[in-house]
Amino acid sequence: MYSYETKIRVRYSDTDQMGFVYYGVYAQYYEIGRVELLRSIGYSYKDLEIDGYLLPVVKFEIKYKKPAYYDDQLNVRTLINDIPTSQITFYHDVFDNNNTLINTGKVILAFIDFKTKKICKPPQKIIQLFEDIF
Amino acid sequence: MYSYETKIRVRYSDTDQMGFVYYGVYAQYYEIGRVELLRSIGYSYKDLEIDGYLLPVVKFEIKYKKPAYYDDQLNVRTLINDIPTSQITFYHDVFDNNNTLINTGKVILAFIDFKTKKICKPPQKIIQLFEDIF
Amino acid sequence: MYSYETKIRVRYSDTDQMGFVYYGVYAQYYEIGRVELLRSIGYSYKDLEIDGYLLPVVKFEIKYKKPAYYDDQLNVRTLINDIPTSQITFYHDVFDNNNTLINTGKVILAFIDFKTKKICKPPQKIIQLFEDIF
Amino acid sequence: MYSYETKIRVRYSDTDQMGFVYYGVYAQYYEIGRVELLRSIGYSYKDLEIDGYLLPVVKFEIKYKKPAYYDDQLNVRTLINDIPTSQITFYHDVFDNNNTLINTGKVILAFIDFKTKKICKPPQKIIQLFEDIF
Repeated sequence: MYSYETKIRVRYSDTDQMGFVYYGVYAQYYEIGRVELLRSIGYSYKDLEIDGYLLPVVKFEIKYKKPAYYDDQLNVRTLINDIPTSQITFYHDVFDNNNTLINTGKVILAFIDFKTKKICKPPQKIIQLFEDIF
Repeated sequence: MYSYETKIRVRYSDTDQMGFVYYGVYAQYYEIGRVELLRSIGYSYKDLEIDGYLLPVVKFEIKYKKPAYYDDQLNVRTLINDIPTSQITFYHDVFDNNNTLINTGKVILAFIDFKTKKICKPPQKIIQLFEDIF
Repeated sequence: MYSYETKIRVRYSDTDQMGFVYYGVYAQYYEIGRVELLRSIGYSYKDLEIDGYLLPVVKFEIKYKKPAYYDDQLNVRTLINDIPTSQITFYHDVFDNNNTLINTGKVILAFIDFKTKKICKPPQKIIQLFEDIF
Repeated sequence: MYSYETKIRVRYSDTDQMGFVYYGVYAQYYEIGRVELLRSIGYSYKDLEIDGYLLPVVKFEIKYKKPAYYDDQLNVRTLINDIPTSQITFYHDVFDNNNTLINTGKVILAFIDFKTKKICKPPQKIIQLFEDIF
């Protein structure tokens, strides 16, 4: 198990006319959580694509408990439990300024070979990095 | 059971550098599906807020099977199975130009009284409209 | 001179906590106006990229006169005055449900050769299409 | 004259299928620049709305010189030249990782009284803060 926390400031454009962060915006916040978790172990998501992989989302689930508001400094805790196989699963908890859990979710992504467009094994480097920290 | 189909043209801004519709954008497409389903039975989501209700999403799940591409004319099929209680559940299937199912999901929303900010019963009008069509 | 009108329904996600359409969203509405104008004369923006061109925006100007609101059915009038050279200029006027002008703007885009990444002449087909209608 | 610099990391969702940051996304980056400039002098944009003001954009202009890419750490330099009247003008320059200017723009916003919905003078506090730093 490895977890990483990222701070995200809510943008004005992230709100909707209810005055809440729009429910679809958390997909972006979760993505930032994933990318920063990978960066924290020395892996760049950007390099993944340069190395010839795609990593599309195959499943996304989120339960909303409380809204977030404009200018909130949210804390996205991202957790990974297992060495990635052809899939990688991230768990996300988002906390508001008061450290209250406001939503929780799960995102599953699949490694795709850019050339064949088929599901594939993850790059050896990413497996190695996770083996080192687990 | 009542279902409704809505066509959505993929915007350039909906794509990402993989060349796919960004996974978080389907939250918007599903929302359009819900709003147009309600409009089709004579109910305006806009009026819901004017009448003193909020309808935030409490749960969102989506499974992605295939990507969508720029300029695709997608078909969002939205389905409702039950008369709303304090919650309302929408099922969504999205089909591409070739009528292939590209993702499927579920969104649960809760009726909130704008004044008290508490969960409440839905407006009588919306119950009546669903009773009429079911 | 050639102009074309496109209807756009304001999405919930397009609003912000002021209850207005967020000022950056009009970039998307203008883009839809451009794409539908081109489609109306028989040209697909999608094909442009397939044919080896990029068409990035080099200048964008917009004056906001009135806000737009959730669920408004806006009318985007897009106008082109000149046969495209290495640049193409679109003028946009957006009208609300009451046919009131709510904003007006201008977008200049440049034709780029995908391979060389240099500014280039537009495809002959697009020149021909505009010569036919002007 | 007062200027302030803010770092912004490009999100995956900010890109489009050209692999560039979508041209409309800079509206969000500029907004962040404005908000952080105000925060740097001790003013919270959030409080502005709580105090009964709206601050919609009335004019937005941007010239794009180079694209930005996924995961770039952009530097948004925001500048204000004059004590706000009923309008406030921000100038923005965005620099990429190599400190190259990639776009430059200007945003004019108007102070609106939330109750009357009419243009009004800015809050005394904001005038005072700018008088202190100019």
